[in-house]
Amino acid sequence: MTYLKTALYQFLILIFSAAGPVAAASLSDQDMQQIKKLEQTALTSNLAFEIDESLSTEVGARRVGTEGNRRSIPWAVAKMKQLGFDKVWTEKVTHTSWTRGTAEARVVAPYPQKMVAIALGGSVGTPKDGIRAEVVEFKDFAALKAAAPGSLKGKIAFVSFHMQRKIDGSGYGPAVMSRVAGPSVAAKKGALALIIRSVGTDHNRLGHTGMLDYQEGIARIPAAALSPPDADMLSRQIGRSKPVEIFLKLTTKRRDDVPVITANVIGEVTGRSHPDQYVVLGAHLDSWDVGTGAVDDGIGVSVTLAAAHYIAALPERPKRTIRVILFGAEEEGLIGVTQYVKTHKDEMKNHMIGAEWDFGTGRIYRMIPGVGPSALNNIRELADLLAPLGVALSPKNDAKGQSDMSALGKAGMPAVNFSPDGMAYFDWHHTENDTLDKVDPDALKQNTAVFTIFSYFAAESDVDFRK
Amino acid sequence: MTYLKTALYQFLILIFSAAGPVAAASLSDQDMQQIKKLEQTALTSNLAFEIDESLSTEVGARRVGTEGNRRSIPWAVAKMKQLGFDKVWTEKVTHTSWTRGTAEARVVAPYPQKMVAIALGGSVGTPKDGIRAEVVEFKDFAALKAAAPGSLKGKIAFVSFHMQRKIDGSGYGPAVMSRVAGPSVAAKKGALALIIRSVGTDHNRLGHTGMLDYQEGIARIPAAALSPPDADMLSRQIGRSKPVEIFLKLTTKRRDDVPVITANVIGEVTGRSHPDQYVVLGAHLDSWDVGTGAVDDGIGVSVTLAAAHYIAALPERPKRTIRVILFGAEEEGLIGVTQYVKTHKDEMKNHMIGAEWDFGTGRIYRMIPGVGPSALNNIRELADLLAPLGVALSPKNDAKGQSDMSALGKAGMPAVNFSPDGMAYFDWHHTENDTLDKVDPDALKQNTAVFTIFSYFAAESDVDFRK
Repeated sequence: MTYLKTALYQFLILIFSAAGPVAAASLSDQDMQQIKKLEQTALTSNLAFEIDESLSTEVGARRVGTEGNRRSIPWAVAKMKQLGFDKVWTEKVTHTSWTRGTAEARVVAPYPQKMVAIALGGSVGTPKDGIRAEVVEFKDFAALKAAAPGSLKGKIAFVSFHMQRKIDGSGYGPAVMSRVAGPSVAAKKGALALIIRSVGTDHNRLGHTGMLDYQEGIARIPAAALSPPDADMLSRQIGRSKPVEIFLKLTTKRRDDVPVITANVIGEVTGRSHPDQYVVLGAHLDSWDVGTGAVDDGIGVSVTLAAAHYIAALPERPKRTIRVILFGAEEEGLIGVTQYVKTHKDEMKNHMIGAEWDFGTGRIYRMIPGVGPSALNNIRELADLLAPLGVALSPKNDAKGQSDMSALGKAGMPAVNFSPDGMAYFDWHHTENDTLDKVDPDALKQNTAVFTIFSYFAAESDVDFRK
Repeated sequence: MTYLKTALYQFLILIFSAAGPVAAASLSDQDMQQIKKLEQTALTSNLAFEIDESLSTEVGARRVGTEGNRRSIPWAVAKMKQLGFDKVWTEKVTHTSWTRGTAEARVVAPYPQKMVAIALGGSVGTPKDGIRAEVVEFKDFAALKAAAPGSLKGKIAFVSFHMQRKIDGSGYGPAVMSRVAGPSVAAKKGALALIIRSVGTDHNRLGHTGMLDYQEGIARIPAAALSPPDADMLSRQIGRSKPVEIFLKLTTKRRDDVPVITANVIGEVTGRSHPDQYVVLGAHLDSWDVGTGAVDDGIGVSVTLAAAHYIAALPERPKRTIRVILFGAEEEGLIGVTQYVKTHKDEMKNHMIGAEWDFGTGRIYRMIPGVGPSALNNIRELADLLAPLGVALSPKNDAKGQSDMSALGKAGMPAVNFSPDGMAYFDWHHTENDTLDKVDPDALKQNTAVFTIFSYFAAESDVDFRK
């Protein structure tokens, strides 16, 4: 999950609403029975977990440009075929080269201590002998922005902001600004480098990576995240004694002129009546390079593939096509979906509705629709079907699609956003700790049941979700 | 805390017993009032946490032979003086050199993935180009022992045992055998190296280090611990496909011929009537090199120093001397206390009773005495004083002293063992995650209150705890 979701999280409001009783007009009684059966299958089968286990074991980390990423593409193609998709293909995605190298950080004075640091995605490296300089601490991004011009000349800026743990992930927005925009802001004040307290809610000695975004025309300075305990230790040293001097060395290499190739992997369960109308399920196939991406977004890959498989296994195809898109290079800033939207712009009107799954390990507690006013009644029918799974209908109707799907939402596709319990998500997010043991098999079953019901409901109905 | 505590944990039994009402014969009414005041002070002051914060911030990691260890000694001396100890001195401790270097591990085939590994303490390094070999998995230490002679020739042995989480830490014993004795057992079967699933209860991407013990006359092979998620990933690969080949490279250097110097740091609050009778409080000053040792054993250092300080701050010294010993090189196998026992063998009879604190972050729920039969009545009085703090008296009377203190127990000193809630302890134990944020300030207050009451009770009484 990338920083572009920030805007979304900031505006999510935690209001639950019970779906009122409405007539089930979209689907026949037979369809309703089918849905009950699908729900049972999803809640009792271990398939989604097995898919994630396969991905974590046989592929692992798969950041764009790495060997793992190259292996993930045939893995996904083979998995879709094995799961009974009718069509499977890949679409080339091009990005630019960035290699992580190593990160070294330590306090030099007054109290020498090593620190655990990780380069931010896209960061340039330090000079090859590293940087040794005094650190200036800022409590948050606003304080960094308020620093006087030139005041950081010859120094390393350090934003020590603590991300808050919130069920809807809304602590991410205020925290991630220093990661995304911080490097250029610090550079404008003259800083040699930026370090931040990791954007995360845990207390592990592991840094959280994630993309930075250098502003055009501003010097590109190296940027890294400290593990939360190391950032706190550094703050304590600064609180005791000034100046505090640190050493930072990053051997990252950013090559905007060197292309790297990856792919969107697309599979379809072809509709029996309207094969050119797509119900779109999205997730991203790439991951950061440090963890194995079992959570981000192995869970999304597994849930969407399993949901489509359950429907593909029915005796009859639904009316519309279910298209599962496993996007490439999401973490680098929605690169894969941007190329998808370009390629498919002429058929965007056939993307009837979509949902992405890219927010981790929890049970889904809410559905936020983003549909035309006349389709809201149909959404209430869907909400009735999801209510026994603990999913409440949001009173808002402003979803534009999560993560990759937000680019399709922008291109006019109606969307449904599913909100999971995100309390633990930012403990693992973008760290080495993103591994299979963090995946809750029971939550995964509930997630898959929700996606299966949504997919079948949308694909078997004739509703125009735009109207 | 070192592996020598294993034997102790294995025999601890979780039986709580309420101390029956007995006459408070050991202490006067005035003493009893004093104890109530001391308890209040310990429960409301933040001193112990502040000491640990100072150690974690100003010193950090302090494994014997490192710069941090050298700095920890003047830190401890200064802290004792500042806290009002009457005498403070150091006693030289000699150990041998071992340097950690780097650890690199990855699956080579069938599914290449990097793994997080850490060298076991004392391990020799691999050849400089590393070792590439097939892995043979054993579910536990017994299975490794049962392997046929020669069956591991040219291979790497892998023990994938999962440590159990138990309140008294008794899951450690069965798990730690593969770490301590595993390398020589694997070497006897012909293995090139040993890897183990970390001896820990967490799921973090950090390895747990700790000492191994090479058997005399057996080839010394390199040994490392994988982080729990990596060990599980490796087991899954082995479960899917054989052979699984890994690469392992350790650049550790073990030099049994090169001495390194550290110290026991000793401070006394001198008794007013029997200055040559010692109530001994123990903890270890050294730590592993990967975390900052805030838990293991910064907590013990802080609790014992704070307890002695509260008593030193009273208008009058207690009858007996309170001797706080911060041992050196505990992690390498009780090196400091072994030298202490040698140096002080003639005054061992003056060590009236002792208690060590070296088991982490939890509240103390139990006291196990190890005293002469006639002193048991006095121990029941002490138990009455500790009962309001949630400390139950064990029906056993077989404590020999925790950790370092076990060597004094062996030398004849009566001891009291305090059992804390150890549920979380092995999540952090011997990892980079041993940092200040893992210390619970409220539990630390309770711990300190228990140690303060114990110290005052034992130092103000005339009881011969041997009888």
